[in-house]
Amino acid sequence: MNQILAVGSVAFDSIKNPFGEVSRVVGGSATYFSIAASFFTRVRLVAVVGEDFADRGARLFEGRPIDLAGLQTVPGETFRWKGEYGFDLNTRETIYTKLNVFEHFQPVIPEAYRTSPFVFLGNIHPRLQLEVLDQVTAPRLVAADTMNYWIEGTPGDLREVLKRVDILIINDAEARELSHEANLVKAARAIRAMGPRTVVIKRGEHGVLMTRPGEGEFFAAPAMPLEEVFDPTGAGDTFAGGFIGSLAACGEITDAAMARAIIHGSALASFAVEDFSLDRLLRLTQDEISVRFHHFKRLTHFEEA
Amino acid sequence: MNQILAVGSVAFDSIKNPFGEVSRVVGGSATYFSIAASFFTRVRLVAVVGEDFADRGARLFEGRPIDLAGLQTVPGETFRWKGEYGFDLNTRETIYTKLNVFEHFQPVIPEAYRTSPFVFLGNIHPRLQLEVLDQVTAPRLVAADTMNYWIEGTPGDLREVLKRVDILIINDAEARELSHEANLVKAARAIRAMGPRTVVIKRGEHGVLMTRPGEGEFFAAPAMPLEEVFDPTGAGDTFAGGFIGSLAACGEITDAAMARAIIHGSALASFAVEDFSLDRLLRLTQDEISVRFHHFKRLTHFEEA
Repeated sequence: MNQILAVGSVAFDSIKNPFGEVSRVVGGSATYFSIAASFFTRVRLVAVVGEDFADRGARLFEGRPIDLAGLQTVPGETFRWKGEYGFDLNTRETIYTKLNVFEHFQPVIPEAYRTSPFVFLGNIHPRLQLEVLDQVTAPRLVAADTMNYWIEGTPGDLREVLKRVDILIINDAEARELSHEANLVKAARAIRAMGPRTVVIKRGEHGVLMTRPGEGEFFAAPAMPLEEVFDPTGAGDTFAGGFIGSLAACGEITDAAMARAIIHGSALASFAVEDFSLDRLLRLTQDEISVRFHHFKRLTHFEEA
Repeated sequence: MNQILAVGSVAFDSIKNPFGEVSRVVGGSATYFSIAASFFTRVRLVAVVGEDFADRGARLFEGRPIDLAGLQTVPGETFRWKGEYGFDLNTRETIYTKLNVFEHFQPVIPEAYRTSPFVFLGNIHPRLQLEVLDQVTAPRLVAADTMNYWIEGTPGDLREVLKRVDILIINDAEARELSHEANLVKAARAIRAMGPRTVVIKRGEHGVLMTRPGEGEFFAAPAMPLEEVFDPTGAGDTFAGGFIGSLAACGEITDAAMARAIIHGSALASFAVEDFSLDRLLRLTQDEISVRFHHFKRLTHFEEA
């Protein structure tokens, strides 16, 4: 089995939106990623939590193929984030970010994880992403996420990361900012010239656009039309988890496998937003994923006359 | 052959955008619609122009399967519109609208056109759309376009039109305004409850979402990723022309035919924006349409492992 080494944040989130409010629920990029990916393959999670995590957090990963040997527990409190969404869920304001133990996070990759064939670098400081890459041995595929904060704040470090990743997963505004190109086709090509062979652009309710060299340069997936969207928190990381999880499970990195993986990521993300926090993912079944995969097919497929 | 009766505006446009400026070129909703649809089937155009049109306008339709017996020429000047686009082409300001002869347009459907099996009602006053419907005999399919101006200004007339059309083609902001629903799935269902069995929602650079009752309730098509977009003027009417043209040529109104027609519409629209005004459509070939149809397939298709 192709394990995935996943490095990122594990956090306590508080979320307020027009449908309700939850306080101090488990969140974080690596959490959403790992749970989504664990529907497809085994995940080796590397992150840091405080001593307040043990009582409620660890249960979440139980019974799933997620290895926790790299989840460090250190004195202090777990990373906390609070966000509030606007009436249509398209705007989000951060009320506070308390890095707590995450402020001094140094990713230490356990010996047994260093040969992981698939590596996912969650949205953390590019310096830390480079430290992870320095500790792993010839991975088959490295995927990374980043955000405007690093694009603006640490562009040099980010450039170093880009030279060493195969897939960059990024949203449309970030793609435009990173490339200084308003047109997404030009933006994607400019980013590919910085290193990553494949660029996956997340467009929120408008779906995903993947670009890579060759005949099938573009692959586009719509978002599943949903009547109720409760909470978009973690949707991007859930997408990444389903995407990389599917690729790792398949083991081939072909155009066809990449396209299928984009749909798996989109399917997982479409579930994640149906309830608060991780709630929908935690009760998700393999059968439901399979049914939604077929709904995506019905949503997009057409034939010549 | 399933002819389409198309009623709408024929105009002289002046367009300014970051790539250049053109003055007094032929435009109008019925013009874009007819030229796009004429790649698939015969179109019977009903519109009004002024005496200034003859010299330059009529040539445009020559050599295409577009019947002009319903194109009235009356004393006065042709409808004129001038618009200016913002730097990323996503915003557009109307500099002026001079209705001229269009102000007193009364659609008169020639006797021979009244049994047309397919009818397209371009974006004109809902009262005029109703007058067209009163003159036709048992069409197999009626499609209509509308806009915020009529949604706000003549809601009662528009409701009457909606009861009598099979397909409403509308953009996402208009769908939300017409239904008072922010969520597009709810918006589409609310509009379907007003009459049209099928609602096609145009989302600009994000593609198209079609909804209709039954198993395949949703069909989504992305826009073709384009490196250069020169002029979005008429893209929506071009989409409608390709869509209804394809449906009429096929003759079947099944889920599969509708999906294929959405792709044909999207393909035509993707060409229309590649040059100013009608220029790209006027030099378009059937082979190019066929190649782009296959590009759409490569862009969206995936298979199970």
